[in-house]
Amino acid sequence: MRLFIVLGHHAAITPDFNLSDLPGSAGRLDLLCRCITSSFLISHGLRRDTELYLVLQDQLTLRLVGSRLRHLNPDERSTAALVQKALRLRGALQGEGELESTPGIFISQRGLRPVLAEAKARVEQLFLLHEQGSPIRQAGLARDVGFVLSDHLDFRPEELELMADLPWLSLGPLSLHADHCIVIVHNELDLRSGGGPCYNGAE
Amino acid sequence: MRLFIVLGHHAAITPDFNLSDLPGSAGRLDLLCRCITSSFLISHGLRRDTELYLVLQDQLTLRLVGSRLRHLNPDERSTAALVQKALRLRGALQGEGELESTPGIFISQRGLRPVLAEAKARVEQLFLLHEQGSPIRQAGLARDVGFVLSDHLDFRPEELELMADLPWLSLGPLSLHADHCIVIVHNELDLRSGGGPCYNGAE
Repeated sequence: MRLFIVLGHHAAITPDFNLSDLPGSAGRLDLLCRCITSSFLISHGLRRDTELYLVLQDQLTLRLVGSRLRHLNPDERSTAALVQKALRLRGALQGEGELESTPGIFISQRGLRPVLAEAKARVEQLFLLHEQGSPIRQAGLARDVGFVLSDHLDFRPEELELMADLPWLSLGPLSLHADHCIVIVHNELDLRSGGGPCYNGAE
Repeated sequence: MRLFIVLGHHAAITPDFNLSDLPGSAGRLDLLCRCITSSFLISHGLRRDTELYLVLQDQLTLRLVGSRLRHLNPDERSTAALVQKALRLRGALQGEGELESTPGIFISQRGLRPVLAEAKARVEQLFLLHEQGSPIRQAGLARDVGFVLSDHLDFRPEELELMADLPWLSLGPLSLHADHCIVIVHNELDLRSGGGPCYNGAE
């Protein structure tokens, strides 16, 4: 499996944002929506072996599960509407338990720490993506592998402290948008796997 | 320079579309907007050495010029508003001449044939991107290089005929969205150039 964790530092944690102003009223939710589509969508198909955790303001986490996802279109606005629907369940959340808002989209009251613990138990390797890391093309990558990325802001010192044990990988010499990083990671893994295990048919 | 040509088979050629329905009323303009942002935007900067031609229904062409671009934000909606502004100049176009709607965005009454001719005169190599091509990682790439991509639809037979002389390159085993292909091409070129020549400072 391929697992991505994206930290949304300012992303909306309540559903009262304007779908026509995702960068502003929703705290750069446009970027997180593009992370969703770049995690899952290929031309005429969906990456069923991928999961994405969106950690919103270190308080709420959306977990998107490729094997169950439906109704995902490539545009930002319709993706944001799915996120909005998940956030409407916020009041019903208890402890760290998850609720499923639409097929394959789960919401919970969890921050980075429990998400990291869960991810580590699910993949063989978990990397932090940073342009100062080692080149991904030269890295040995397990079949079950995860990557932590930040949104448009740098990782915070307390986040880096929580992840001090994670090795850093770099995709190239430039600092790129998180959704673009996910595209490049998928491509690297596709090339290694021959496209086989990662893609399990159209939606 | 890096040059991309994207064929938008159904994309809007009039400005009377709804910014809240880019996939539908604007003929998958959402995808072309993401092609714009993946062509030009990196984290906190703009790729000044890149140009993008969007060929709309083989009738109108938008040419976006990195060295002049301004007001480009990463979200689809604000990018679509720039496209809409360009399409408003449609009635003022004469022959194949270009008009500049906002800094770095030019519109003209040109289809694929004249765009290909112009592109060939501007780059050393022009490739067609297709998953059945030769692997890009093994290809020799000139400093001034261009790539032709299709939107969510396959290239049409008449388009392939026009481009029969172009070599095909592949990015990996899967068929990917055009905007994701652009991200991967940029990354390949970034890695070869060390990030230097492609990035000329923040906007």
